[in-house]
Amino acid sequence: MPPADPYLLTPGPLRTSATVKAAMQRDWGSRDERFVAMNKQVCSRLLDMAGAAATHVCVPLQGSGTFTVEAVLGTLVPREGKLLVLVNGAYGRRMADIAGVMGRRTETMEWPEDRPVDVAEVGSRLDRDRSVTHVAVVHCETTSGILNPVRDLASVVSAHGLALIIDSMSAFGALPLDSAETQFAAVAASANKCLEGVPGMGFALVGAEVLEKCRGNSHSLSLDLYEQWKGFERNGQWRFTPPTHVLAALLQALDEHAAEGGVAGRGERYGRNHRALVDGMERLGFRCLLPRHLQAPIIVTFLAPADERFDFSQFYLGLSARGFLIYPGKLTVADSFRIGCIGRIGEAEIGEAVEAVAAVLDEMGVTELAPAGAA
Amino acid sequence: MPPADPYLLTPGPLRTSATVKAAMQRDWGSRDERFVAMNKQVCSRLLDMAGAAATHVCVPLQGSGTFTVEAVLGTLVPREGKLLVLVNGAYGRRMADIAGVMGRRTETMEWPEDRPVDVAEVGSRLDRDRSVTHVAVVHCETTSGILNPVRDLASVVSAHGLALIIDSMSAFGALPLDSAETQFAAVAASANKCLEGVPGMGFALVGAEVLEKCRGNSHSLSLDLYEQWKGFERNGQWRFTPPTHVLAALLQALDEHAAEGGVAGRGERYGRNHRALVDGMERLGFRCLLPRHLQAPIIVTFLAPADERFDFSQFYLGLSARGFLIYPGKLTVADSFRIGCIGRIGEAEIGEAVEAVAAVLDEMGVTELAPAGAA
Repeated sequence: MPPADPYLLTPGPLRTSATVKAAMQRDWGSRDERFVAMNKQVCSRLLDMAGAAATHVCVPLQGSGTFTVEAVLGTLVPREGKLLVLVNGAYGRRMADIAGVMGRRTETMEWPEDRPVDVAEVGSRLDRDRSVTHVAVVHCETTSGILNPVRDLASVVSAHGLALIIDSMSAFGALPLDSAETQFAAVAASANKCLEGVPGMGFALVGAEVLEKCRGNSHSLSLDLYEQWKGFERNGQWRFTPPTHVLAALLQALDEHAAEGGVAGRGERYGRNHRALVDGMERLGFRCLLPRHLQAPIIVTFLAPADERFDFSQFYLGLSARGFLIYPGKLTVADSFRIGCIGRIGEAEIGEAVEAVAAVLDEMGVTELAPAGAA
Repeated sequence: MPPADPYLLTPGPLRTSATVKAAMQRDWGSRDERFVAMNKQVCSRLLDMAGAAATHVCVPLQGSGTFTVEAVLGTLVPREGKLLVLVNGAYGRRMADIAGVMGRRTETMEWPEDRPVDVAEVGSRLDRDRSVTHVAVVHCETTSGILNPVRDLASVVSAHGLALIIDSMSAFGALPLDSAETQFAAVAASANKCLEGVPGMGFALVGAEVLEKCRGNSHSLSLDLYEQWKGFERNGQWRFTPPTHVLAALLQALDEHAAEGGVAGRGERYGRNHRALVDGMERLGFRCLLPRHLQAPIIVTFLAPADERFDFSQFYLGLSARGFLIYPGKLTVADSFRIGCIGRIGEAEIGEAVEAVAAVLDEMGVTELAPAGAA
């Protein structure tokens, strides 16, 4: 019997704990002092998580993570600035698209989806092109599941005196990101990924000195992080109606994150999930897109079997009927699918997922799991 | 003893039912067919509520209501268009601000906060200025609580062959708005006002023929209603992570809205709440800003007593301690405060609120409730 709620083995939204959902069983007045205090706690913990309390400010924003990424780009990159976006997947491309719609001068450097951003190449480009003002990168590109070398990249960007913007949507809270080691102008992240809150808000950690200079940059009233920040500074309140229940769930999720040992503890559980998933799937005969050293313990891309009896839709529905939701591939380079390791799940659930995969393959009559072109 | 949760007598977020909150006790996969079906249901009911299923499409959007208003303005008004915003309060002014940040040509017509938009004056203006392409108005301006004559306005705007954009954030679902009677290009509204869902998403009902022509208008990727719509058309899914729990709560709230008799039933309860509130407060000696025929049964502005022992902060805290959250005034023309009539409350709770007001005034030693300058 599948559980009443499916396990969400996706890049998000994810399975959350019962206690996180229970935190949404009350209504809050958005301008009430109790809610204002909850906001302050959330922001202060998020800053601490990145060792950034002394240097950065936390600005929460309504909407999905993409809204926060757009708000960061629109607020930080001035209209006469020039953004260099480092692209090795769909989320990098999206940042370039966002900047394009806003009409900011934007260039990209691109790498294949199974290769990390190359820091030395970025350094050479920045040596040659002195007109770049901001560099943007995705921390963990869930297109493939690859980890980009943000720490080394930050050194190079910072050595050129430029501002680094990190989309850490699917990594923040589980992979280390400390402002003392990784110099960033801004990090954008979300409540509902590794922090295990529910979807409905994102947040940015922005250098206070950087943000102070961003008045009037934004292309949008709603997505103006400078004004959003000034609103909080003024009275602790959101400028526009906040998702009160989502915020309450995030506060509870942050309690549970701390109780698990913070970033280290959360990262260890995801690491165990990841190993159990890859070991189990490889045992069945699947192959991963990425070598282990490039793979973040967030979401894994498996190559689709060449066996013509393998049909992704049927595979998806078979797993869904057993209570596991996985994700289609997002690669342009190979036929694939993705299984996530994050959210309120552990090795036991990953083990059950692998068993379900085996059962569905059996039902489909798929016996040959090697991808096309494999030896 | 105050209730565990305060009664939120505000323009929102509001008190929601226990069953609406209980609908957030599950996690959904945002691309799963069950969630896709929930979205379809929500959109179809919202269109039906405005009698707009044959002519309009429903496009939900992440974020607060302001995000939806910005998305409507940015998507509908082309870069060479000209927007006329009718202003008699803060939300009208905000629409003009939004359009200004986006760089759209914008003009305003302004009226005092205690007077509705004057339809005849708008007609004359449109006769004289043939460069206007879009007219925007707020249905119920919660700055004062005033109702604007959107039906008559729609006739005039439509007679000029122009597009009307209505911000019905605080009225949709409780005050009648039927597309057959009131010709609108777009209505923007929110999950967490009269529909009694939780905050975190808005939606727009947009004429299908209008929206079809809006490709490429938007100043923003996240707030592009055309692309958001095309995404739903393609696969029933949100382009970017939706607030899954908020959507589930809205679906439950729409069930409860229908069970209460739809717009008529909801409007009647709010009307009873409104009468109980005004009668009770006038019995104590308070005066309303607006005459009853201009006042929507949503939120009421009361003039602050001239008595120097009346202090709003103390008044607010006294009511808060008794479990009632009210709202400060937002008027530029008079010292005032506001009490809402909407959300999951009835006459009994309004009666308790009025008793609490009397008790707090007594505590403060306020005996003279007439406002400054009153006879």
